[in-house]
Parts: sequence; C-alpha cells; structure tokens
Amino acid sequence: MRIVDLINKKKHGERLTKEEIEFVINGYTSGDLPDYQVSALLMAIYFKGMDTQEIADLTHAMVHSGDVVDLSQIQGIKVDKHSTGGVGDKISLIVIPLVASVGVPVAKMSGRGLGHTGGTIDKLEAIEGFKVELSNETFINNVNTYKMAIVGQTGNLTPADKKLYALRDVTGTIDSIPLIASSIMSKKIAAGTDAIVLDVKVGSGAFMKSLDDARELAKTMVNIGNALNRKTVAVITNMDQPLGHEVGNANEIKEAIEVLRGHGAEDETQVALTIASYMAVLGGAFKETTEAKAHFEKVIASGEAIELLKKFIEIQGGNPQVVDHPEKLPTAKYHLDIKSDMEGYIAGFDAEKVGIAAMMLGAGRRRKEDVIDFAAGITVAKKMGDHVNLGDVLCVLHSNSPDVLEVEKVVRTAFMFSSNQPEPTQYIYEIIE
Amino acid sequence: MRIVDLINKKKHGERLTKEEIEFVINGYTSGDLPDYQVSALLMAIYFKGMDTQEIADLTHAMVHSGDVVDLSQIQGIKVDKHSTGGVGDKISLIVIPLVASVGVPVAKMSGRGLGHTGGTIDKLEAIEGFKVELSNETFINNVNTYKMAIVGQTGNLTPADKKLYALRDVTGTIDSIPLIASSIMSKKIAAGTDAIVLDVKVGSGAFMKSLDDARELAKTMVNIGNALNRKTVAVITNMDQPLGHEVGNANEIKEAIEVLRGHGAEDETQVALTIASYMAVLGGAFKETTEAKAHFEKVIASGEAIELLKKFIEIQGGNPQVVDHPEKLPTAKYHLDIKSDMEGYIAGFDAEKVGIAAMMLGAGRRRKEDVIDFAAGITVAKKMGDHVNLGDVLCVLHSNSPDVLEVEKVVRTAFMFSSNQPEPTQYIYEIIE
Repeated sequence: MRIVDLINKKKHGERLTKEEIEFVINGYTSGDLPDYQVSALLMAIYFKGMDTQEIADLTHAMVHSGDVVDLSQIQGIKVDKHSTGGVGDKISLIVIPLVASVGVPVAKMSGRGLGHTGGTIDKLEAIEGFKVELSNETFINNVNTYKMAIVGQTGNLTPADKKLYALRDVTGTIDSIPLIASSIMSKKIAAGTDAIVLDVKVGSGAFMKSLDDARELAKTMVNIGNALNRKTVAVITNMDQPLGHEVGNANEIKEAIEVLRGHGAEDETQVALTIASYMAVLGGAFKETTEAKAHFEKVIASGEAIELLKKFIEIQGGNPQVVDHPEKLPTAKYHLDIKSDMEGYIAGFDAEKVGIAAMMLGAGRRRKEDVIDFAAGITVAKKMGDHVNLGDVLCVLHSNSPDVLEVEKVVRTAFMFSSNQPEPTQYIYEIIE
Repeated sequence: MRIVDLINKKKHGERLTKEEIEFVINGYTSGDLPDYQVSALLMAIYFKGMDTQEIADLTHAMVHSGDVVDLSQIQGIKVDKHSTGGVGDKISLIVIPLVASVGVPVAKMSGRGLGHTGGTIDKLEAIEGFKVELSNETFINNVNTYKMAIVGQTGNLTPADKKLYALRDVTGTIDSIPLIASSIMSKKIAAGTDAIVLDVKVGSGAFMKSLDDARELAKTMVNIGNALNRKTVAVITNMDQPLGHEVGNANEIKEAIEVLRGHGAEDETQVALTIASYMAVLGGAFKETTEAKAHFEKVIASGEAIELLKKFIEIQGGNPQVVDHPEKLPTAKYHLDIKSDMEGYIAGFDAEKVGIAAMMLGAGRRRKEDVIDFAAGITVAKKMGDHVNLGDVLCVLHSNSPDVLEVEKVVRTAFMFSSNQPEPTQYIYEIIE
C-alpha cells in the first residue's frame, strides 16, 4: 500500500477502506509515514470529507493507536461528558455530583491543554489539597464506592490524535468536521467510557459559529458513537455569551457551588440539568430526561447536591470547607470594575473576547508551559438583554497584577449595545441522538 | 507572514498576493518552510486553483529561485519549443534545422530526466561524437554563426521547481493545471528564451487525456507567457498513437532524417511543420504561419534541410555521415517482429503502452541512474485506420537482449482492432495564442 495512492483516492472523492485508514494511522503513529504526505491527505479530507463508516474507522484506528483504559471493574454503565469548549463552561463541576446522586458512575479522565481558563482538573486544583493524580486502584474504588472520581490523563492515550492534531494546527486542517469529530470521540472512547453526552457549543464563544456546522459536528459524533457501540447523545447549546457569570478557575468553582445550591444563573443551571439528565438516562437511572431533570431539581433543593459536592472534594483530598466558605478559595489582589460608557440593552456579545481577556489575566494557558493563576478571572455582570446605564458595571476583572489596561480594552469590545431589547436567548437548541 | 494563514486563505478560495507567493517559494527553496506545510498548500491549490496573476507570480518566483540564463549576446529573437511529452516525439530534432534555416536563432537548453525514451540530448548522443556539453561561449558563438545549438542543462535553474516537483510527486498534487503550467513555464523562462512554442499533447500517450484539460493547460501557459513578456503560442496535438513510426533513440534520429528528406510519416511531418512555422513567426521571419510552412516545404524538397541537419551535427562534434548512412547509428542485436493474431482495422491505440515497452527495452530511464540503450526501441508498423491481416507485423522490437516476452505482452495491449475503419485521425486540434 502506498499513501500517495490513498491521497489520490481521497482527492478524487473516493472512500478509504478500514485497512487503508489503519495503514495511515499506524504508519503515522510509528513515524513510517512522513508529515508531508499526511498533511496532503488531511487537506484532501478537508475538501472531500469522509462518510460515516470512514469516520468510524478513523476513530477506531486512533483509539487503538495507543493505550485504551480498562474500566471493566467499575459496576454500572460508565457515562462521560464532553464539551466542545466555551467561555465560562463549568458544567462538568456541576454534573459530577448530580449524576453520582442517582447511582450512575462518573469516572472522569480529564486533560489539561490550552484555553481561556484551565480544564476541569485545573479548576478543581484551585481547591486546597485537591488531588487529580490517583492510582488506578483508588480511582476505580472511589467510583465503585462514591460513583464519582476524576483523574488527570495518564498513559499513552491516542498518540495518533496528538500527532495529527499538532500537524493539523500548522497546516490549516483544523476545521474539518470528520477530523474534529474523530479526534474528540477517539479520546473519549480510549478513556474507557460506555456512553457519552456531548455538549456541542455554538456561537461567538465557541469553535462552531453556525448552528448548521454545530449540527453537522453533533450528528457526526453521534454516528461515530453508534458505529463503535457507545451510546451517544449530543446537546447543542448556546455559546453566544459566557455561560453564567464567572470565567476563571476559583471563581468558576464558586459559581458551580451556587448552581448546586439552587442559586445559579438560569443559563448555567438549565444547560447543566439537561446534560446531567441525558447522562442519567444513558446510565440507566431513568427512562425519560424529564423525570431525571425533575429529580435533579429535588436533589438540589434538598441540599443533597451540595453535600455530594463536599464528599467529592473530600474523597479527592481537597478541603470541603470551600463549599460553605468560598472565601477560602484563591482570591486575586485586585478587583477592577469595568464601567459602561454606553447606555442601552446588551444586544450582542463577543464571548471569545471575554475568554481571551481571562487568559490575559492568567486564568488559562496560552502555551503548555504556562502556569495558571487560579485567582485570576472575570465576573460578567451584564448579559444579553440586560439594560445598562452609564457607569453601570459591565464586568469585574480579578487580577494579581494592577496593570490591566490591555485586558480592559479587549473585554470592552465583548459588549455590544442597542436601544432595543433583543429577543430572549435560547439556552439549548437541539438534541441529537 | 505565516504560511498557515496562506494555507487557510487558499483553502477558502482567496487569492495569494505576489509577496505571499514569493514568501512561500523563497522560504521553501531556502528550507525555512517545511514540506508538510507546503504539501498542504499544494493540495489546497489543487482544489481551489489559482487565477492568471497568481500563476504568473508563482512562475516568476520559481524562475528567480535560482540562476537565470543570460542569452542577451545572441542576436535576434530567441525562440524555444517545449512538448508536454508523448511517445515517439522527435519534433525537436526536426525543427532545429528548419527554424535555423530562416535565420531565427534556436538556442536550445535541454534536460535529461525520466521517460519512455531519452530526452532530445540523449537521442542526439546516439550520434557518434555528438557533444551536448558546450562552454557558454561556444554555445553563444554557434547560435550567432549557425543559428542553432543545443546544450545540456547546467547551473542551478529553478531549484524551487525541482523541490516542489519532488514533493508533488509523493503527495498526489501532480495533476494541478496551475502547478503543471508554472513548472513548465518557469524552466523555459529561466533558460533565457524570448518566445516559446508549446506542443501540448493530448491522448492515450500524453499526460493530458482530454482535449478540455489540454486546452486549459495550453491557455494557462500562454497566459503566463503573456504576463511575463514572453510571446507564447500553444499547439494542441494528437497523442492517441505514437507520432510517426519510431520510438527509441537511434531510431528516432533515423525517422527525423526521413522527415527532413521529405519522406516522413504524415503525422510527424505535419506536427513538425506547424511547430516550426509558429517558431518562425514568433522569431520574426514571417508574418503568417502559412508562408512559413510553404517555405519549410521548399527547404525540405530542395535538400537544404538535410544539409542543415548535417551541419548541426558537425558543429556539435558529431559524425554527419549518419545522415546519409543511418546504418552507422547504434543498432540492436535482435529485431523481433510482433505479428497480429487479429484481423481488422486498428481502431484504438494505447500509446502509453508502446512507451512503456520501449522503456522496458532500455530506451528510457525509469530511475535517474539508469543508462540508456541507444539502439533499443520499437518500430510501429501499423497505425490507426490501417487494415491488418492475421500474421501482419504490428511492430518490431529492437533489443540487445533476446528475452522480450514481457515487453511483447505489454506492446500487444497497445493495439485495438475493429471490423470498421475508424474516422481519419486529426493531427492538430487547436492553436492557442
């Protein structure tokens, strides 16, 4: 088999067989195939796409390019969730105790990576003592006992995806739905889960800017899941503005606590309850998501949710007192109010700008070697549809450096005004299953 | 400037500026840009194309990636020709003395390369004593005195094209008209010519299989010539069967002699006269190609053409006696008649098979290091429209090895029969100027 023939096949819009895809993925992982041929193939895939079977074969080959986590010792249907990424996305923090409350095991393996803020494990490390490095035995025991545990990614998972992603990043082949979908799904499947709920975000703060693209990505990932025997549901959610009010690490923990107390922002709460409900249904705890949602509302109202969050923090070695005393979480030295120089309704939001501003404050990593400042972040005070008077606080910058002039410039461009109040925002667009 | 941004521009169908194209070509030639980014860009160009200005800018950048030959000491308008390649294509051997006869300087620089037979300089080396390595001074003096000289390519011409071609070859990006056209034209322009006649071949023995593709390539190359101030004409010619009867090196020299004596095959003669006529017009010797053609017919009939061929051989150090005594050219040990096991008209020809068979006999190089056997080749006895009886000789294999069984198998598949005589063949399809 010669890769140049496979490049030509794909270039002419023909499909690649399972054997051909495995030849490429195994050859690229081992270093037998050079970058320059693989990048040409990726560009041909960008233009000609892949059908459902090809994408499933690609995902399967990437899953088996390295270690596959064995979670068979965990009782029950393991359900994982994945978000395609947004600004202020703290849904995982909220759904872990909720889903665990109905006996569905949440065995979460999470990476660090780059972004506006840290990943879920970075955020949790803002809690004093919280450990994300657990032995395999402890991890499995904790899930079996408490139905919840989180661990930083270890082992050599999906090396093909790591190598391909690095190549795509420098060859203009990131924005290809088959490549995005297979990348996400291969990581989830290699992490050993039985079922997956995907939070596909769409809007100014998400990678997918149009509902059509988001829908295509969602369908593609659900098809992969079905083809590879993982029950998969995708929830397409709004990312036209930051989710909730907090963007950062410590302050996102605070907001997750608020949601679990029943005092959360409406958008954050609704998205979290929906994701948790689909996880509960896939995990077999409920037949219908409406039942699951009603149950979770009760779990929150009764205080059970907040107790489970404390338990979760405790079993991971963290100080559970932060739940009742959030002031024990890292706090920044400076809190700068950004006041409005406009009057009107917030009618548009460039959510990505808020994310970039948070990263500039130190909340996220621009490069792998960057160190996260847990206290840094942004509190978004005004959201879509809110009325703003001159001098009203639009947002608060939490910073350990007093020099935030550049950040202020960026974050100001996130808010767009109108004299008319816009239509109310839809939090959840569609469910693809 | 970052190449990933240029890849994305091209991927989205936007045009690249002159500066951007120079950044890519200069960066790739110098080794600053890696293969894997350039191959992704080439694949994006394959899908999204380039407009006339981009292709001209690309050609210009490739011309100036290395040495540019200075022919300013040669008097008159220097006219070169280029063929996109076919089987039995010995047109250059014929047009050199013809065009020189009207005072238009033919300063031909020619490469070796791979193919079914050798290139023009390889074929000429079949003549005892013929030298293709001339000093720059001798080359220029010979052109000024005799209006004709040929030299093997020296110097570092179009290194960008060499590097790009090698990359295209292994990344499925050979068959892109902008890339083919700029590759050909950059080499011709770097060789110092003022005007170019292109012989764009189309058919089973050519790279371009359809007239539409050939026309697009021809137009693209003519546009490049116009944009870079080189008068350029493209003649689209038939390559559905080998040109003339001889395929090889020594035997193509023999057939060129026949044409210049006025006894050549009709297709070979007509294509040669047409190419020569356009060269003569571009060189300023005639206003109309019809005048040029009529003149060349007289030059052949009077014996002047054959005397000029002798002179050409003589000034390059070769033995001119081969013209009157072709038996002095290298001759193979074995001559195997391939006899027909079918009866009917030759109605189809897979010309490429004849070329491959010739290469198998040793007439061409498969790899750079292969040595050409000047005596090896094929005489095609039956051509399109000819009637064939059982046992008639279809072709003769000239070989220095008696073991030609595999070659016979290949060459037999070149001939296709029908009980009906096909329409007569058109030698020249179109002129693009």
